[in-house]
Amino acid sequence: MTRVFNFSPGPATLPEPVLRQAAAEMLDWHGTGMSVMEMSHRGKEFISIHAEAEADLRELMGIPANYKVLFMQGGAIGENAIVPMNLIGRGGKADYVVTGDWSKKSQKEAKTFGTVNVAASGEAGKFTSIPKQSEWKLDPEAAYVHICSNETIGGVQFHWTPETGNVPLVADMSSDILSRPIDVSKYGLIYAGAQKNMGPSGLTIVIVREDLMGHALPITPSAFNYQLQAENDSMFNTPPTYAIYIVGLVLKHFKAMGGMAAIEAHNKAKAKVLYDYLDASSFYKNPVNPADRSLMNVPFKLKDDALDEAFLKGAQAKGMIQLKGHRSVGGMRASIYNAMSIEGVQALVAYMKEFEAKNG
Amino acid sequence: MTRVFNFSPGPATLPEPVLRQAAAEMLDWHGTGMSVMEMSHRGKEFISIHAEAEADLRELMGIPANYKVLFMQGGAIGENAIVPMNLIGRGGKADYVVTGDWSKKSQKEAKTFGTVNVAASGEAGKFTSIPKQSEWKLDPEAAYVHICSNETIGGVQFHWTPETGNVPLVADMSSDILSRPIDVSKYGLIYAGAQKNMGPSGLTIVIVREDLMGHALPITPSAFNYQLQAENDSMFNTPPTYAIYIVGLVLKHFKAMGGMAAIEAHNKAKAKVLYDYLDASSFYKNPVNPADRSLMNVPFKLKDDALDEAFLKGAQAKGMIQLKGHRSVGGMRASIYNAMSIEGVQALVAYMKEFEAKNG
Repeated sequence: MTRVFNFSPGPATLPEPVLRQAAAEMLDWHGTGMSVMEMSHRGKEFISIHAEAEADLRELMGIPANYKVLFMQGGAIGENAIVPMNLIGRGGKADYVVTGDWSKKSQKEAKTFGTVNVAASGEAGKFTSIPKQSEWKLDPEAAYVHICSNETIGGVQFHWTPETGNVPLVADMSSDILSRPIDVSKYGLIYAGAQKNMGPSGLTIVIVREDLMGHALPITPSAFNYQLQAENDSMFNTPPTYAIYIVGLVLKHFKAMGGMAAIEAHNKAKAKVLYDYLDASSFYKNPVNPADRSLMNVPFKLKDDALDEAFLKGAQAKGMIQLKGHRSVGGMRASIYNAMSIEGVQALVAYMKEFEAKNG
Repeated sequence: MTRVFNFSPGPATLPEPVLRQAAAEMLDWHGTGMSVMEMSHRGKEFISIHAEAEADLRELMGIPANYKVLFMQGGAIGENAIVPMNLIGRGGKADYVVTGDWSKKSQKEAKTFGTVNVAASGEAGKFTSIPKQSEWKLDPEAAYVHICSNETIGGVQFHWTPETGNVPLVADMSSDILSRPIDVSKYGLIYAGAQKNMGPSGLTIVIVREDLMGHALPITPSAFNYQLQAENDSMFNTPPTYAIYIVGLVLKHFKAMGGMAAIEAHNKAKAKVLYDYLDASSFYKNPVNPADRSLMNVPFKLKDDALDEAFLKGAQAKGMIQLKGHRSVGGMRASIYNAMSIEGVQALVAYMKEFEAKNG
């Protein structure tokens, strides 16, 4: 068996030790005679898995006691509606900062549920930089300010935390949660689909400050009501149990790697290898303002896009897959989440050099 | 490793060959060098898994071409809101037949989105029988008639298909989908959480007649809009890929078992072993009207509920777990979905006899 270097933007590569453990435990978890997939979510075995995953997440991220951790379904696109359904009732309006395709989608969906103000947008600059906060037009009466901390398509990332005063900051962290230390207390709510940096698709993590719950619009489905889910330990409906188990294994792996500071150092080192090469090359180009570059998703273009097919084919032959850029921007994209090794990034750069030498 | 007999109502026992295959393929699916969990949902590998699962489901259930199959998130409790959000717009009112806790929940949630008429209810008889259709008060103008084909808590099941004329019949089949042949063309929409008879939790299957889509209420979240999901082959948002893969393996297993007719015969044989014994015993009692008894969930009570704890402890010692009844009805419940073997049911009956002999 040869494992590939998988640069997929999500679902994405996972730590190999996690997959080995999941395989070993598939038919019999800890001598219980059953797979985690077969466990009643209300049985003591799964309740322990669930509780441990939550405790490890709280420890890794330093989540304060006045925040609830919810394990939900529907992904970030589901949350685009679920967030306003639950939060916009506090006054009826919200601010959105648009820094790429994902936050733009969030902003559009929210309009169904209240008044949405685009406080800032990077669209005029083709989403190659994050608008400075001094240019944001924030409404002090807004129910919340929404950002996407990392845009997977454009490859921009917040490397600072916006100051929103008494207005709760809401962040879609689907693509950079657990990639670096953050101060959770500066956010009112954080949500993330699991399938980029944490585990399989089909699980959404919501971290929400307790005082923000309890204002859901009447049309909020019970299964997506934060207050109801919080009151029922995320078991108002059957949670995606196997995905929670895998996330739990990934969190243990992250702890073993040394926690958030060590992981951030690892991610910075990986990204530096790739950006340094891109900046030194005249054959490849990354369009993003250096201060706003994502450590997770690195889009780049070849000098001549007629070479794209050959580049992808050559990469595939060397066991490097999913490098094609998003159809809306073209070119290439390397997604280098926590589970991508530095060896994977070095192999990619070595191949890029070789390809440049041949075609440059 | 000793596998238990797992009588959990869901998530529930799965076919052992499926778990073995999933374990074997965990690090490297078909020589691709990656786990199914790591695959981009837009890559050709996962697209083939997804397409094959849909094709096998269509074949097994005989789903007509004018029905869409959607792989969604949120479970049946999510669908309690998602169904009316998508369908009640055709006129603003719907009929609900209440046969137990699940259909009662469905009916309550639907009220948020339109006018709900309880066309029939078994509540007066403590949900021990299904109201005859001659007693139903159907509204010919209703957008749909909703039933739950099998109630896991009360243990009643429809063994006939209601006639609803031009009003589409909507069925929550979470707990008996794929347990027997059904005529899909008699339904407008069928939905089911996967975690009872098909696979892991976190995946919901929706089978919907095409002409019923396109009437979603404006407040329907995009991720839960049937029309949008149908137009995007269930990839409007990232689907729960690993759960779809496991369901695909389960479907292959069901095909190998001989398809729906063979599986129904298997389920009838298993249920007969248990009901025959219950009816012959004066120590145990199943309260359900014989014609409406579920082949999937068999609730029963001991003569003296002071013996419940000892019964459960003894069962556990013999490797039979999750037999405790739902807290709302007490007593015991054996869930005997497709993946429960006849040996499992025989072992349960043998234990019940032994326990009766000792305590009767």
